[in-house]
Amino acid sequence: MLAALVLSIALVSQAVARYTPDWESLDARPLPSWYDEAKVGIFVHWGVFSVPAFDSEWFWWYWRGQHDPKCLDFMSKNYPPGFSYPEFAPQFHAEFFNPEDWADIFKASGAKYVVLTSKHHEGFTNWPSPYSWNWNSVDNGPHRDLVGDLGEAVRNRSLVYGLYHSLYEWFHPLYLSDKKNGFKTQQFVMHKLLPELYNLVVRYKPELIWSDGDWEAPDTYWNSTAFLAWLYNDSPVKDTIVTNDRWGAGCYCKHGGYYNCKDRYSPGELPKHKWEKCQTLDKHSWGYRRDMKMSEIMDLPSVIEDLVYTVALGGNYLLNVGPTADGMIPAIFEERLRGVGAWLEINGEAIYASKPWKIQNENTTIPIWYTSKGANVYAIITARPPKPTVQLLVPKTSATTKVTLLGNPKPLPWSPVYPKAGLVVLLPDLPYSPGQAWTLKLEDVH
Amino acid sequence: MLAALVLSIALVSQAVARYTPDWESLDARPLPSWYDEAKVGIFVHWGVFSVPAFDSEWFWWYWRGQHDPKCLDFMSKNYPPGFSYPEFAPQFHAEFFNPEDWADIFKASGAKYVVLTSKHHEGFTNWPSPYSWNWNSVDNGPHRDLVGDLGEAVRNRSLVYGLYHSLYEWFHPLYLSDKKNGFKTQQFVMHKLLPELYNLVVRYKPELIWSDGDWEAPDTYWNSTAFLAWLYNDSPVKDTIVTNDRWGAGCYCKHGGYYNCKDRYSPGELPKHKWEKCQTLDKHSWGYRRDMKMSEIMDLPSVIEDLVYTVALGGNYLLNVGPTADGMIPAIFEERLRGVGAWLEINGEAIYASKPWKIQNENTTIPIWYTSKGANVYAIITARPPKPTVQLLVPKTSATTKVTLLGNPKPLPWSPVYPKAGLVVLLPDLPYSPGQAWTLKLEDVH
Amino acid sequence: MLAALVLSIALVSQAVARYTPDWESLDARPLPSWYDEAKVGIFVHWGVFSVPAFDSEWFWWYWRGQHDPKCLDFMSKNYPPGFSYPEFAPQFHAEFFNPEDWADIFKASGAKYVVLTSKHHEGFTNWPSPYSWNWNSVDNGPHRDLVGDLGEAVRNRSLVYGLYHSLYEWFHPLYLSDKKNGFKTQQFVMHKLLPELYNLVVRYKPELIWSDGDWEAPDTYWNSTAFLAWLYNDSPVKDTIVTNDRWGAGCYCKHGGYYNCKDRYSPGELPKHKWEKCQTLDKHSWGYRRDMKMSEIMDLPSVIEDLVYTVALGGNYLLNVGPTADGMIPAIFEERLRGVGAWLEINGEAIYASKPWKIQNENTTIPIWYTSKGANVYAIITARPPKPTVQLLVPKTSATTKVTLLGNPKPLPWSPVYPKAGLVVLLPDLPYSPGQAWTLKLEDVH
Amino acid sequence: MLAALVLSIALVSQAVARYTPDWESLDARPLPSWYDEAKVGIFVHWGVFSVPAFDSEWFWWYWRGQHDPKCLDFMSKNYPPGFSYPEFAPQFHAEFFNPEDWADIFKASGAKYVVLTSKHHEGFTNWPSPYSWNWNSVDNGPHRDLVGDLGEAVRNRSLVYGLYHSLYEWFHPLYLSDKKNGFKTQQFVMHKLLPELYNLVVRYKPELIWSDGDWEAPDTYWNSTAFLAWLYNDSPVKDTIVTNDRWGAGCYCKHGGYYNCKDRYSPGELPKHKWEKCQTLDKHSWGYRRDMKMSEIMDLPSVIEDLVYTVALGGNYLLNVGPTADGMIPAIFEERLRGVGAWLEINGEAIYASKPWKIQNENTTIPIWYTSKGANVYAIITARPPKPTVQLLVPKTSATTKVTLLGNPKPLPWSPVYPKAGLVVLLPDLPYSPGQAWTLKLEDVH
Repeated sequence: MLAALVLSIALVSQAVARYTPDWESLDARPLPSWYDEAKVGIFVHWGVFSVPAFDSEWFWWYWRGQHDPKCLDFMSKNYPPGFSYPEFAPQFHAEFFNPEDWADIFKASGAKYVVLTSKHHEGFTNWPSPYSWNWNSVDNGPHRDLVGDLGEAVRNRSLVYGLYHSLYEWFHPLYLSDKKNGFKTQQFVMHKLLPELYNLVVRYKPELIWSDGDWEAPDTYWNSTAFLAWLYNDSPVKDTIVTNDRWGAGCYCKHGGYYNCKDRYSPGELPKHKWEKCQTLDKHSWGYRRDMKMSEIMDLPSVIEDLVYTVALGGNYLLNVGPTADGMIPAIFEERLRGVGAWLEINGEAIYASKPWKIQNENTTIPIWYTSKGANVYAIITARPPKPTVQLLVPKTSATTKVTLLGNPKPLPWSPVYPKAGLVVLLPDLPYSPGQAWTLKLEDVH
Repeated sequence: MLAALVLSIALVSQAVARYTPDWESLDARPLPSWYDEAKVGIFVHWGVFSVPAFDSEWFWWYWRGQHDPKCLDFMSKNYPPGFSYPEFAPQFHAEFFNPEDWADIFKASGAKYVVLTSKHHEGFTNWPSPYSWNWNSVDNGPHRDLVGDLGEAVRNRSLVYGLYHSLYEWFHPLYLSDKKNGFKTQQFVMHKLLPELYNLVVRYKPELIWSDGDWEAPDTYWNSTAFLAWLYNDSPVKDTIVTNDRWGAGCYCKHGGYYNCKDRYSPGELPKHKWEKCQTLDKHSWGYRRDMKMSEIMDLPSVIEDLVYTVALGGNYLLNVGPTADGMIPAIFEERLRGVGAWLEINGEAIYASKPWKIQNENTTIPIWYTSKGANVYAIITARPPKPTVQLLVPKTSATTKVTLLGNPKPLPWSPVYPKAGLVVLLPDLPYSPGQAWTLKLEDVH
Repeated sequence: MLAALVLSIALVSQAVARYTPDWESLDARPLPSWYDEAKVGIFVHWGVFSVPAFDSEWFWWYWRGQHDPKCLDFMSKNYPPGFSYPEFAPQFHAEFFNPEDWADIFKASGAKYVVLTSKHHEGFTNWPSPYSWNWNSVDNGPHRDLVGDLGEAVRNRSLVYGLYHSLYEWFHPLYLSDKKNGFKTQQFVMHKLLPELYNLVVRYKPELIWSDGDWEAPDTYWNSTAFLAWLYNDSPVKDTIVTNDRWGAGCYCKHGGYYNCKDRYSPGELPKHKWEKCQTLDKHSWGYRRDMKMSEIMDLPSVIEDLVYTVALGGNYLLNVGPTADGMIPAIFEERLRGVGAWLEINGEAIYASKPWKIQNENTTIPIWYTSKGANVYAIITARPPKPTVQLLVPKTSATTKVTLLGNPKPLPWSPVYPKAGLVVLLPDLPYSPGQAWTLKLEDVH
Repeated sequence: MLAALVLSIALVSQAVARYTPDWESLDARPLPSWYDEAKVGIFVHWGVFSVPAFDSEWFWWYWRGQHDPKCLDFMSKNYPPGFSYPEFAPQFHAEFFNPEDWADIFKASGAKYVVLTSKHHEGFTNWPSPYSWNWNSVDNGPHRDLVGDLGEAVRNRSLVYGLYHSLYEWFHPLYLSDKKNGFKTQQFVMHKLLPELYNLVVRYKPELIWSDGDWEAPDTYWNSTAFLAWLYNDSPVKDTIVTNDRWGAGCYCKHGGYYNCKDRYSPGELPKHKWEKCQTLDKHSWGYRRDMKMSEIMDLPSVIEDLVYTVALGGNYLLNVGPTADGMIPAIFEERLRGVGAWLEINGEAIYASKPWKIQNENTTIPIWYTSKGANVYAIITARPPKPTVQLLVPKTSATTKVTLLGNPKPLPWSPVYPKAGLVVLLPDLPYSPGQAWTLKLEDVH
């Protein structure tokens, strides 16, 4: 079958210059431009783990893989002995799941792309994968094609649709068998992983594959380069597809499309390669936790600051929410996402399609982050200034320099400071900003 | 049994002046002072209705009493035919219920009392009532004494503990039988209601009974005056107990302790009788709804404005949250409660133990509400003023008049305006207030 | 049959004199004649205990009252910690319950009356008792009136309908409270037991009340004599009602209607008072057990022998089955009941409306039991005779004596044996009898 | 992987004469002798279908494949909309499953082999198949290796262990895809079927594979001949393995090991090829039905008659029971199996290791079936004779001819009848036989 599939694809495609299944060739592919321009995305972790909704989306692993006392205790207190993880699936009801509502919220957040877990490490597929019979969202639990249904709603709002996909599955017996064999066998890859991954791409044509779960085995085990070569040369999304860097042990921060590096990666200075920071609103988990408390959830100013920092350093910001097993985005998350959107409504000009400036930040009395777009420079202030003036050290002004506060039409008075650079801006009465960040737009500075 | 109970109580008590079981006598009882001083309380709606957590805590009634299409549809889509309401009870797990956490949140909200539904119209008792066998929280569902456990945690934090209690039970067969008999029989009252209510008071000694569900029958059916006479003369809480006004058809706004009048009652002007406004954070429901959206939840400024308005008009403000069947207070509610607390931390001086002032509000350019305490008058501004000055029309100043902004130590410059009354205050840079309300304290005005 | 029953009742009843609420008066009431004529009844134990269906219908008590290790172990292996008995009720589905099928089987068994547990010691009522809200078969579990539905089907087949009813309820809090008070209080009796029992009688008009659960308290606690006086004087079933002897500690075998004495009571010789033996097909339980084995179930010959023994000693035989929570009579029980019916089809003449003879049994080479009806004597042989002749020692023959085998038209050769009594009968080829018992009818002997 | 497996097996095995993967070669293999000698086996249908336990083990197909109104109605009445078949699996608790008890019953039935459904058409594997992740009895439901556990208990009692295995799986998406392709693709066979089947054989070493579910596709699709060649040449059970004839459309009654032909196949005369009749005690279903009635269950005489008929015609008799989802063999089935055993205890001499005689039956006044062993001929009478003599027409007697009744030591009087053949036997008083069949052993007849 696989052979046949590859063959038929080969016939269809007539790529002039084709990528070869090696990192040198694959890494040379330019990243499709939509991605860098988008800057902000929404990450959605949803699966059977949303049913116990305890500890984190890694619950199964901590419970049965690590024998974590907290998880063991949770199970022994609340379930009959012997209760197994697959038995959670029938309770993944998703009865309130309305993809239109979700997509409205995502749109309102100002994000430009949405990435859903099509399959997490638990192996449960959120679409009717023929290679995951009875362990997918149509056969068991929601009884619907979550990947397809959300995709349609998202795309109807001109958002780009991406899919998270885990290469490994903690407890898949074929994977465990390959692992036991030191990854010298590829039963899992041949019978499960690759057929399923091809199926996913062909069926849903995602513009982004957020690969994960790669670290236990080398890319040669996963057949990653061959898959990527197909993806870039012959797949139905060959021109638009963006991927990340999790394609095998040792790959991250080194090979693939953009770099995620490790989770919540924060580079100290401007990286040379396009990167993305993914961050989750619930600081303890990517999947929903039924017992989360307010103190465990990022507040809006922290989110905005993190977003600004990330974009100033050239990254994309992928902000995660974990919906409930019922199919709702918890109101506290909805409030944060709409808060981000309200901030971007005013300040988005400094974010979308921006480029890092010659410096990324300065910190005189308050933290200031820079972005730029064409001739304009944006200085984003991520705390309320103690005084009605702000001093910027690096921008060099000229007679035509013009300073405005985004959201405020009137030019602001300013005066140069140092002989060579810098200016002092007289701020207006700062409008209420739940995100606690304001943007100065500097025209004609360098 | 009841006769014996009443008898033994009569022997124990030797009240000098005793209340007689009629409204004239009962209505004359002075309200214990703690209540008016407290000003802010938390209302908690929790019960079996938290399991379907759909539509509202009236779900059972809308479904089976009103045949509401929305509720019928919900049931037919998600449950097998014939599924009955009592069958929800085993899923009222309360596995995450930590009364210490709840009480911490309530304490942090600045509230001074907490009122829990001991029994809502569904009849399920949140304590092991011997008159509600197998339909209470110890026999079925949580397997714990919710009333007792929360009470202990609440009182450990010096909060006053009150209990909501519904007189009627929608579907109790004895109640329905009495109702059919035009309330000329009292089977429900004798076999169920009164024994249970006495049990509740004697066992938990609540300082407040928030009576409800009275409207279908006259107080003579409920035996309300006899119960209240016992409560005021002989019960273990006779000196501290506070009650409301829902004791029979026609009673509300007329008889009992303080007045609730109807739900969300908002008097236009200063009422003559102590009253309380209860309001719920989820605008659509008092009990938890699994599918609530952000737009349906009151934002913090609205809560603060409502609270300020209520206190200025002499009321108490009872703010409601609906916990989940798992036993959590949803993070969005926790955030609101902590927001109220943060606001009261600064502005509480104008609220707790305050009295209405000679006028309640004025509205020149921005809304201003007044309270007073001793010689001090508080002017609470519930919107950010467009200019750095505020003009007050009614307060009469003198040479010794002093004006400060709560949370700000420095006296503010002010000047008198009119010949007879009024002043203009120069505001400082207003600090960030998520509640969007600031208090001017006026000393030596009248 | 019903017409005949009504007629005989009319003749018996001319209630001039009323029963007084004391045993002397009540015990003097003649037992309505239908009962002794019926001889064979079916007992049905059905309730929430049919859901765990483990150990016996006393499961709740053994588990939570006695802390029986077997039951504790069963629960801890199969249910989450804290799971409570009332939570079994929603699984009492009764989805296959067809009262017509049940009544067909009971009719086919040859029984003349059927006794269903209306409420066992667990307190769950199999009818919508207004005094057992949410703990009855309409509110929870089957969602139907089991007592009513079975009654109709049973009576449509001219079977008499009786109801088992437990006075005590192991865990009812009011009962436990009265018990703690040394039964000096009667809260349970006043608020629960009596209103409910009156409701049961008035609603379903049972011809038999099989009282149980009396032994912990005296009849004065239960108000038994007052209830029985009402039952015999004024209830809608005053003329036909039959009861047993379980009406308070010390009552059994002494007061009431017929005597059950203790469970599975087997008198050594002919009792002076009408009695009933109740026996259960599953030797270990009256309620269904999911894990019953064939060796634990009475075989047909044992049932027949037990029935014959009981009738010969003047008793009625009440044979018990425990249906499943699904609403089925297990096939193995159905087979036994139909086997009894097949035997009675041939041998019923010796059973129904029979009287004990002057001796009850003799045992020369094989066991023989006697019954009589008018001038006829029946000798029932409960084992296949080793030889083709049978010798009877006591019957005195005459010239006109005639001997037949029930089911066989032809008179059998016989000859007298002793000078004063006895005869030898030459048997035909005995027909196949799964019950392994045959009846010789002796006409004109004494 | 498969290639590697086949290779390693090839190295291990050094078969002198090897079977080639074609029917001519495979059909020529002699059937291992244990099978024909065994004569009686027990068939066990157990799986997720035992949970709904409605209609039959084909429930899923009738419900979702055929849209059978009875099944649709059952689901819509008892389950929420959308409930899917895989969601039954968590209720396959098997909590009472004691393989020792089962094996005791099977042993007591007189059977010599036991065949368990390792995987029925639903695809759920009763062992932890790595190719059926989360859809097997260890991951979901019983949480144990049913195939392994029963096998051990069965073999400990010297019974032969066989496994039923369905080739097709009604709803496996890969199977459905191959089917849609006219079976020109073999995705299902390559990714699922064959790896799993090899795993089953290597892991449990069954002595019998009862293949099924073959009829929709040709043997070339299933790769049946290659599998059988491996099974006969190189598998760990190559010397003892017995299989049937369901290996592809058109195979049955034509290719393979012994012939099952169609279900409940009853040849009119002595077949030329070894065959087996499988029959189920519940006449309507092979899997357990919760609502089965006594009239739907074969009685013991019918079973014995069927067994005798089958053996007389050279067949083996495989008698089926459907255990409950709880893990019990229903008592009615246990009673039948023990009844068969009691009959075989006496009459087994005429069954085990017997051969058909020159004629199979005759029917003068009562039905008589013949078997033989060496010089002895057995005439089995399957109804109680109306007279104390039996006449046999075909056996030719001689002076040394001896006739006995099995279970009775004394020779019986007989006399020849016709000039050329036949005899009349004078029967003793026939002992009670619940199976209603008796065996005359004729020595020295021909």
